[in-house]
Amino acid sequence: MNTYNLNFMNNNFINNSFKLANIFLLSIVSVVTIPAQLPQQPGFSTTASPEISPDNKVTFRLYSKEAAVITVSGDWSGLGASEQLVKNDTGLWTVTLGPLKPEYYNYYFSVDEIRTIDPSNPLTVRDGARYASVLVVPGRESELYTVKNVPHGNLTKEWYNSPTLNMDRRMYVYTPAGYNKNQDKYPVLYLHHGGGGDEDAWATMGRAVQIADNLIAQGKAKPMIIVMPNGNANEVAAITEVQRATRSKNAPPPPQAAGEGYETSIVKDIIPYIEANYRVLASQEYRAIAGLSMGGGQTFNIGLRNTDKFAWIGIFSSGMFGGVQGGYGAFDPEKQIPGLLTKSGSFNQSLKLFYITCGEQDPRYEYTQKAVNTFKENKLDVIFKGFPGSHEWKVWRLSLADFLAQLFK
Amino acid sequence: MNTYNLNFMNNNFINNSFKLANIFLLSIVSVVTIPAQLPQQPGFSTTASPEISPDNKVTFRLYSKEAAVITVSGDWSGLGASEQLVKNDTGLWTVTLGPLKPEYYNYYFSVDEIRTIDPSNPLTVRDGARYASVLVVPGRESELYTVKNVPHGNLTKEWYNSPTLNMDRRMYVYTPAGYNKNQDKYPVLYLHHGGGGDEDAWATMGRAVQIADNLIAQGKAKPMIIVMPNGNANEVAAITEVQRATRSKNAPPPPQAAGEGYETSIVKDIIPYIEANYRVLASQEYRAIAGLSMGGGQTFNIGLRNTDKFAWIGIFSSGMFGGVQGGYGAFDPEKQIPGLLTKSGSFNQSLKLFYITCGEQDPRYEYTQKAVNTFKENKLDVIFKGFPGSHEWKVWRLSLADFLAQLFK
Repeated sequence: MNTYNLNFMNNNFINNSFKLANIFLLSIVSVVTIPAQLPQQPGFSTTASPEISPDNKVTFRLYSKEAAVITVSGDWSGLGASEQLVKNDTGLWTVTLGPLKPEYYNYYFSVDEIRTIDPSNPLTVRDGARYASVLVVPGRESELYTVKNVPHGNLTKEWYNSPTLNMDRRMYVYTPAGYNKNQDKYPVLYLHHGGGGDEDAWATMGRAVQIADNLIAQGKAKPMIIVMPNGNANEVAAITEVQRATRSKNAPPPPQAAGEGYETSIVKDIIPYIEANYRVLASQEYRAIAGLSMGGGQTFNIGLRNTDKFAWIGIFSSGMFGGVQGGYGAFDPEKQIPGLLTKSGSFNQSLKLFYITCGEQDPRYEYTQKAVNTFKENKLDVIFKGFPGSHEWKVWRLSLADFLAQLFK
Repeated sequence: MNTYNLNFMNNNFINNSFKLANIFLLSIVSVVTIPAQLPQQPGFSTTASPEISPDNKVTFRLYSKEAAVITVSGDWSGLGASEQLVKNDTGLWTVTLGPLKPEYYNYYFSVDEIRTIDPSNPLTVRDGARYASVLVVPGRESELYTVKNVPHGNLTKEWYNSPTLNMDRRMYVYTPAGYNKNQDKYPVLYLHHGGGGDEDAWATMGRAVQIADNLIAQGKAKPMIIVMPNGNANEVAAITEVQRATRSKNAPPPPQAAGEGYETSIVKDIIPYIEANYRVLASQEYRAIAGLSMGGGQTFNIGLRNTDKFAWIGIFSSGMFGGVQGGYGAFDPEKQIPGLLTKSGSFNQSLKLFYITCGEQDPRYEYTQKAVNTFKENKLDVIFKGFPGSHEWKVWRLSLADFLAQLFK
C-alpha cells in the first residue's frame, strides 16, 4: 500500500464508505436482509430509505424523536396527496407504499410542515426552484431512463451569444456516441422545456440523455444532436448556474417566458450558432423542434411559422388548445397560423411529421383532442397520442421516446 | 398576445412566477423592504430565506407550527456547530447570524433532528451523497465564484473508454471561451476531487468553471482546458448520473478510491483521449495536474512519477504528509518517490512548478509544513502556501485560483 493511501482513511472517506455501503446494500435488498439502521456515523444519516421489496412495495424511513407529523408525497399518486409515516419507540418513522409500477418517481417528505428531500437518498432532482428525491423502481417502464452499458453521448453546457435578446445565454447540447470519433454530419432536434423550467429540465427530470443513448443503441432512433435551449426570453441561464450573490443589485428579473423574443432568437441566433459549431445536416428535412407545455406552445408557433426550417414538429401537453386557466376554447388555429386549415396541403407537403401528445388525465387532453379533430377535418396531417398520466414528466418522457423513434426516417 | 401565451397561465407557471419574484425581491433587499412572508401559494414555500442585510447579517427563516427544535449549520463556523432558530406565534422560525464575511457558503437546517436543505432557497449543492443549501454573501472574496458578464467557457460531461479500468467512464471537460471560434491549441490541467467526491465536485462546490472564466477574462490566467476526471477507480460516474434502479443487482460496489488503477488510467487512457479529441498542446510543459485531499495524494504520485508528462503539480490539503487518522508521521518521501530527495535537481529541472497548499486550521497543516521543510532541506524547489480555513472548499477554491494564475507562464 502506498503511503498516500493513508489519506483515504480520513473521516470523510470512512463515513462515505459506510454511506455507500448502505446504498450498495439497498441495491441487493432482494437477496439479503438489511437492518433499518446501519451503524451510526457522526453527521450521517444511515437510515435505509427508500427500500424496494421484491414485490415493488417501497418503504420510506426517517429518524426523529422530536417530530410531530411526517408525511411523504410522490408523483406515484395525484398532486398533493400524501401518506403519514408512523413512529416507533426508537424514533424511527416508517411507511410502506405500493406496490408501485416501475417508473422514475420524484418524492419529498414533509416534516412538521417543512418540505424536505429524503436525507438518506443521494438521488435528487430540481424542478424549477424546488428539490425532490428520486425513486427508481426498476422494470420495463423505467429501464429507458437509466444509464446502461451502451455507448454514451456527451452533454455540453454551452454558452452562445444572442444578438436578438442582447445577452450571452446558456443551452445544453447532446452529441450522440461516436460524434467525436467520426466526421459524420447529424440531424438536430431543438427540444424545449415547460413553464417554470429551464435548459436543465430535459437532461434531469426528462432523462433525455439516457433516452437518446438507449434508443440509439437499440437502433430505434437515428443518431442525432439534441439542443436544449433556455426558452425564458430574459433568463441568461438556469438559476442554479448563475448563483448570483443573493443581494446583488444586478440579479436578473424573474424569467419572462417565451414571447416573440425567444421565437426570433432560435431562428436568428441558436440555429446559426449550432450549425457553425457542430457537424450538422443543415437543411429543413434534418431539423426537428419539440417542447412540453409552454415549450409545446413555442414549438407550435416556431415550427409552423418556419416550415422552411423545420420538417418535424412535436408538441407535448401544450395548453394552447385549452384546458388551462383562461384558455378554455380560445384556440383559433387559422388566426394563430394563417393557412394552417385553409392551406393545409402546403403544410402537409413541408412537414414530415406533425406530432401531438397529451396525458390522458391532463385537463388539456380533451381540448387537444378537439384541436386535433379540427386539424384532421381540414385535412392537416397530424399524429395524436395519449399517454397515461396528468401534466407530468412520465408523460413527457414517453412522448420524447416515441417522438425520437420517428425522427429523420 | 398570441393564443399560446395562455399556456403560460397554468398553475406551475403562476406559482413559479411568485417563487421567482421572491428570489428577485431577495436580491434587492438592500434597497427595498420585503415582508418575511409573501402571499401564500399552494405547495410553495414563500418564506424569504436566506436574507442578507446591508451589514452582511444573514437571516434564516422557516415556517412550521409543529416543529420542536430547528437549527441551522453552515461552513461559516466549525464543523458541527449549529444555531437554534426561534419560533414566533405565527409559526415563523428565525435566526440572524453574522455579520458573515463575503464567501460562498453551504448550510443546512436540522428540523427535529432531520437534516434538510432550506426549502425557500433554490440554490443547492451536492457533497458526495448529501445536499446543502448555498448562501453567497457578495463581496471581494466571493466575486470570483459567481457568473459574471464575461466570455464563458463550456463544460462537457464526457464519456471515454478506459481499457485500464475496463469500463466506459465519465469526466468533465472545461473548454475556455473562444475555443469554438478559433483553431488554437491549449494547455491542459487535470484536476482531481477528494475522497467522497466525484467528477462533479470541482464544477459545483469548487466553482472551477467560474474561477477559470473570471481569471481568464481578467488576464490573470492563461486560457486552458481543465479536465475533471472521476478518481474513484471502480466508479463509472457520479451516483447522480448513474441513478441506477435502487434494487438493481448490477449496482456498482462502493467507490474504491484511487489505487494503481486510476494512476495508470490517467496516463494510458485519459490523456490520450483528451489529446485525440481536443485541440491540445500535447507536450510536458503544457500539462498540469492538481487535486485536493485524496486527489492531492493522487497528484503527488501521478505527477512526480511522470515528470516526463507533467511540468506543473498542485497539491491541496493532502493527508499523505500526515495529520489524518493513521497517517501521523508515516510519510517517507524517498520511499514514495525514489530520488525525490537524493536527486532533487532532476525534479527541479523537469518541473516548472511544484506547488502545495493547506488550510491553516487543517490538522494536516503542520505535517505538510514539515514535509515542505524536508523538501527544501534537500533542495527540492517547492512553493507552499496556507489559506485561512480547515479541510474545506474555501481553501480549495483559493488554492485553485492561486494555482491557475501561475500555470503555463
